[in-house]
Amino acid sequence: MTYLRSKVFQQEPLVNNTFLKFPQSSHSPIFQDPSEAKWKRLVKTTYLDPNGVKRTWESAERVTRPADSSVDGVGIIAILDKPGGQEILLQKQYRPPLNRVVIETPAGMIDAGETIQQCAERELREETGYFGVAVKTSFIMFNDPGFCNTNFNLVHVKIDMSLPENQHPMPDLEEDEFIDSFTLPLSSLYDGLRKLEAEGYAIDARVGSIAQGIEMAKNLEFD
Amino acid sequence: MTYLRSKVFQQEPLVNNTFLKFPQSSHSPIFQDPSEAKWKRLVKTTYLDPNGVKRTWESAERVTRPADSSVDGVGIIAILDKPGGQEILLQKQYRPPLNRVVIETPAGMIDAGETIQQCAERELREETGYFGVAVKTSFIMFNDPGFCNTNFNLVHVKIDMSLPENQHPMPDLEEDEFIDSFTLPLSSLYDGLRKLEAEGYAIDARVGSIAQGIEMAKNLEFD
Repeated sequence: MTYLRSKVFQQEPLVNNTFLKFPQSSHSPIFQDPSEAKWKRLVKTTYLDPNGVKRTWESAERVTRPADSSVDGVGIIAILDKPGGQEILLQKQYRPPLNRVVIETPAGMIDAGETIQQCAERELREETGYFGVAVKTSFIMFNDPGFCNTNFNLVHVKIDMSLPENQHPMPDLEEDEFIDSFTLPLSSLYDGLRKLEAEGYAIDARVGSIAQGIEMAKNLEFD
Repeated sequence: MTYLRSKVFQQEPLVNNTFLKFPQSSHSPIFQDPSEAKWKRLVKTTYLDPNGVKRTWESAERVTRPADSSVDGVGIIAILDKPGGQEILLQKQYRPPLNRVVIETPAGMIDAGETIQQCAERELREETGYFGVAVKTSFIMFNDPGFCNTNFNLVHVKIDMSLPENQHPMPDLEEDEFIDSFTLPLSSLYDGLRKLEAEGYAIDARVGSIAQGIEMAKNLEFD
């Protein structure tokens, strides 16, 4: 059976996804030899607290952030205007640290010399095949401030669905990337994620928190 | 000058916060000796990709998750009903991995034998002084699935502002915790966070993504 490396599903999330079955992972919860680690490192920070007490804190870092960048990468918010309403472009991707398939937004690491906007447009094109234009960038966000320094900008990318190049989006993935793209209605994102969790998927905190924000807004009055 | 270890600010975010000046940090971006690391560790995962190719992935883990828990901890959504509308309870906390003061929700690590709901109520009480009741729990969310296995439940905690014990909330912090609590209007959370970033604070991705979700919902129609 041929394995499709990536497909863009614009209608419904897959239920019986190949990704859920593929990982044959040996998850080794052991200290990795630091001299052998290429992408991540453990860090020790020393600081004086407000009472003048010297303290230390352990954390972890990626070693891939370019010297000219203030962030590790970007997350991408791409909303597709469908006849039934707005849908958000999401991905299913196997993540070795969890040994799970995770629901995330398109995202990626920034290259040296690249702007945030260029990075978002390039990653969207590579991961989903869609050609879009970055229209808005968030403040910088930190994934897990007590644990690591990983940070990113969330970039809103506008996709013109009438363009010829967006009729049959073809991803251009790295040989070690296995990503399925799909969409969920934005107004019911929270329920959609709950359903995917029940099916065995893990939920990324950024997508999950956006969904929580939408739910919380349903009871809010705006000016 | 006496340093106040924590205060609950229910009106306005602090502008000239002591925390912004306190850190005298020596951030050492060096490999920590694994035999000396107590709280974090580097992990190497081996897996077979869908083409049968054996691959490895580096990541990091906390070593503190209790054996009886499926999550590392909780984030807490606590909404205070104010005369002017709903406000979300937030914190300013110095985070050594960033050497920055970060805007986050109340949060904390789960203890062995504790339920998600008990953890949320305890952490809220310890960090902010408020007594609340956990009313709703999200799906499990993963902070940074390509980098680490850190995960948490976002728990909505209801605070009855008419209770005597909530009139003058008094935090009960660990000796190495330095946290200022404050609130921001929920409907303009995004603008509030942008302002705080301009003042020098770092923004946690969970809070930032909730704010993005609220902004995105402003243009949505709900059933």
